[in-house]
Amino acid sequence: MVKAAARLVLLRHGQSQWNLENRFTGWFDVDLTPKGIAEASAAGEVLKAAGITPDVVHTSLQTRAIETANLVLSASSQLGIPIQKNWRLNERHYGGLTGMNKEETTALYGAQQVHIWRRSYSTAPPEMQPDHPYNPNNDARYASIPSNLRPRTECLADVVERLMPYWDGPLSEDLRQSKTVLIAAHGNSLRALVKHLQAIPDDEISDLDIPTGAPIVFDLNQDLEPADSSPVADRYLL
Amino acid sequence: MVKAAARLVLLRHGQSQWNLENRFTGWFDVDLTPKGIAEASAAGEVLKAAGITPDVVHTSLQTRAIETANLVLSASSQLGIPIQKNWRLNERHYGGLTGMNKEETTALYGAQQVHIWRRSYSTAPPEMQPDHPYNPNNDARYASIPSNLRPRTECLADVVERLMPYWDGPLSEDLRQSKTVLIAAHGNSLRALVKHLQAIPDDEISDLDIPTGAPIVFDLNQDLEPADSSPVADRYLL
Repeated sequence: MVKAAARLVLLRHGQSQWNLENRFTGWFDVDLTPKGIAEASAAGEVLKAAGITPDVVHTSLQTRAIETANLVLSASSQLGIPIQKNWRLNERHYGGLTGMNKEETTALYGAQQVHIWRRSYSTAPPEMQPDHPYNPNNDARYASIPSNLRPRTECLADVVERLMPYWDGPLSEDLRQSKTVLIAAHGNSLRALVKHLQAIPDDEISDLDIPTGAPIVFDLNQDLEPADSSPVADRYLL
Repeated sequence: MVKAAARLVLLRHGQSQWNLENRFTGWFDVDLTPKGIAEASAAGEVLKAAGITPDVVHTSLQTRAIETANLVLSASSQLGIPIQKNWRLNERHYGGLTGMNKEETTALYGAQQVHIWRRSYSTAPPEMQPDHPYNPNNDARYASIPSNLRPRTECLADVVERLMPYWDGPLSEDLRQSKTVLIAAHGNSLRALVKHLQAIPDDEISDLDIPTGAPIVFDLNQDLEPADSSPVADRYLL
């Protein structure tokens, strides 16, 4: 067994208001619910009990993930740890579906089409129109993203594409310093990362569910590949 | 009137548990009280109402200041803003007095000596001994500070000395990019910064009180000096 060179801990944010309402959230900036807040704090307690001390936290530019990161560090008495925030860790952009609940979408487009948008690797929903009520593109936090990179809709393949420069850049740089890196992010940005780490085929990745509030631990070798082949389901810290 | 080249907003954290108990806190890592939490959130609301959007936040490595920064950004719906954390913005280190309340200190050392330690610019309290129950020097967050720079006690002059490299470095770099910079910090680290900004003499600076929870706004010219000479008391945003 190769000694791990670095440790990567993935954490999906807890329940948000729109998870609760069963609406496509994507880049819309909802808050955690009280349950989501409790899930994040519990994850911090779990990390503390396991003796896992991140050297740095990376998160998205979305409130629910940043609050999760803050709550984890607060619950584990580690608020001094640096937090890096980047849009490349954002949730998948759901385009024109953003804000609609699953029933509305089904009534409008049919169950089969909605299933494809949710589960196909490479089929994106309709683009978000500029006058969409939940268009995030005028949000100041995204002003520094070049306009040609700002998504108007995304399939999971698009998420992988915009995530990879961040994996190859800041994340790998931190991990190569033998650091323990915690990523507090979203169902689909974490799914995209796990796809890369475990080389999961395009037609299988949509079956992978990332649990909320349960830290997932990957020990990595010096090539920043998983030191063992355990499936995600065996990597939860509970 | 010279057009401001940059804007600096100073915010002292709200009430902490040891403020409430009237104990010398220094580098001990206490939490905000519910009142302190409310003060921080209110400061965020005030910034939002004033239309002040920081481009970056700088804070110390201490929980009460970091929580203040997080609460300000949460209350103003700006959690995506980057936060830099650095020990040079920490509170003054109170050495051997850390954890003692003002009555205990007076009984032990006499009122005059305690007054000198609190108010003299250049007289530091007794050094903290390695076995002091509140010694922070084994705290992981301070591991990257070279041991010769890790304070064992500080007078305000010492705080100015360790703060200035951070002013001349990261803070000035951000301000020179015409940025709005928010600093969430402590009574004495902010006093030290105001002393530098307004060239307040050594024997006058201890009279300056920095309010908790009230943002203090400095518009700066291109030399990063205050664009006007208003006293701190006229710069509060309430």
